[in-house]
Amino acid sequence: MTSADYNNRNNNYHESHSFATPHSSSIFSTHEKEGLYKAIFSRRDVRSQFITDKPIPDDVLFRILNAAHHAPSVGYSQPWNFIVIKDRSLRRQVKESFLLEHRKSIFMLEDSDDDPDKKQKKEKYMSLKLEGIMESALNICVTYDHTRFGPFVLGRTSVPETGVYSVCCAIQNLWLAARAEGIGVGWVSIISNQDLQRILFIPEHIRPIAYLCLGYAYEFADKPDLEKAGWLPRLGLDKVVYYERWNDSKE
Amino acid sequence: MTSADYNNRNNNYHESHSFATPHSSSIFSTHEKEGLYKAIFSRRDVRSQFITDKPIPDDVLFRILNAAHHAPSVGYSQPWNFIVIKDRSLRRQVKESFLLEHRKSIFMLEDSDDDPDKKQKKEKYMSLKLEGIMESALNICVTYDHTRFGPFVLGRTSVPETGVYSVCCAIQNLWLAARAEGIGVGWVSIISNQDLQRILFIPEHIRPIAYLCLGYAYEFADKPDLEKAGWLPRLGLDKVVYYERWNDSKE
Repeated sequence: MTSADYNNRNNNYHESHSFATPHSSSIFSTHEKEGLYKAIFSRRDVRSQFITDKPIPDDVLFRILNAAHHAPSVGYSQPWNFIVIKDRSLRRQVKESFLLEHRKSIFMLEDSDDDPDKKQKKEKYMSLKLEGIMESALNICVTYDHTRFGPFVLGRTSVPETGVYSVCCAIQNLWLAARAEGIGVGWVSIISNQDLQRILFIPEHIRPIAYLCLGYAYEFADKPDLEKAGWLPRLGLDKVVYYERWNDSKE
Repeated sequence: MTSADYNNRNNNYHESHSFATPHSSSIFSTHEKEGLYKAIFSRRDVRSQFITDKPIPDDVLFRILNAAHHAPSVGYSQPWNFIVIKDRSLRRQVKESFLLEHRKSIFMLEDSDDDPDKKQKKEKYMSLKLEGIMESALNICVTYDHTRFGPFVLGRTSVPETGVYSVCCAIQNLWLAARAEGIGVGWVSIISNQDLQRILFIPEHIRPIAYLCLGYAYEFADKPDLEKAGWLPRLGLDKVVYYERWNDSKE
């Protein structure tokens, strides 16, 4: 898809797009609510379940990126960029960065022959599949530009990090839209941002926030991989909700 | 709602909840997709449109918080807490913090009698309604606990900030679920985190990420307030999407 195509689609958005309903009734039907909650509850971090030879059509990719672009942003600064990467040699370089960072992370997990729990945890960690950089249809690097519409960004005066928070909201929109389209997303967080900047020619003032792998998934597991593997349990909601003030007695 | 109620609802989640469909068909129907996209495109940062005397029922609040709790998190660390605040004296203290920070921010906007553009921008800024702390039904402070399930958090070894990114994904889930429920959310970012920690008894190692105002809205505007007010335009999607690598020529 060319840049001009994108622009046309964007300009004609309200008129032409089948899933563009910003002006429709403000109330959500039961079916509409169910659609949202289904996306939220069945979204997964996909690493192993990519259908490798099925490309993502341009119109689907457009809907996913457009959903990301409609995230909230501090002072309406829209401080995100999305670099769509299909080139396999670029992806191979990113995979190298992952492998190096992964090796480093293994050393951070204490090992001990005297402590079978620690030994087992390390072995479990090493057995987990943590990325699908080459197996996915494409990768997307999401970045943060603190200079956009600056230097005065409304609402960013007290807490400068709110700009980054906006980019994360965009990532979650992207993730949910992808899920509804049948496309899995895996966030590769074991990676060097310096490497990403070098490989993708990202200027120094731009900060990589996420490196995502996208592709059609043959399955969305009923539970997160790390829960299934017994890495960690899901907390009860009551454990993370407090009333009126922080409640240390719950800790 | 008591803590025990929350726990029961959470445990019985898959069986009893009308909007719990994690095990239903993996494919999204057109209606389901439309529901998700409608939430994404019609979500707004609500400050002026709260129905002040309409409380949020417990079951609706539960659904919204549960949606937040089902966000992705690095290493499945679920590092978030949600402090639900209804108490008006606490909210008044938070409002004081906003007013002080807002006054500070006005000084950051250069003023000049010689430059009518700058003068006009400052006047516009001062006229904007930027929070609904007292008018909303309740406030939620969302926090980040970097110690949860630590010190080794899978996937957080290369980029420590990924823990914060998880909390932001939870906030976006919350925002979309609220929208589908007819509830507006306004993010108050002009605020002092130190003040929030003091007012809400938040321990030093816990970081406030967002202070949100929630309430039924009598309207979700067709465009963001800041776009309507002519503060900033929405960027074309083509302006923020690059292919294969960063493209400076678009800047």
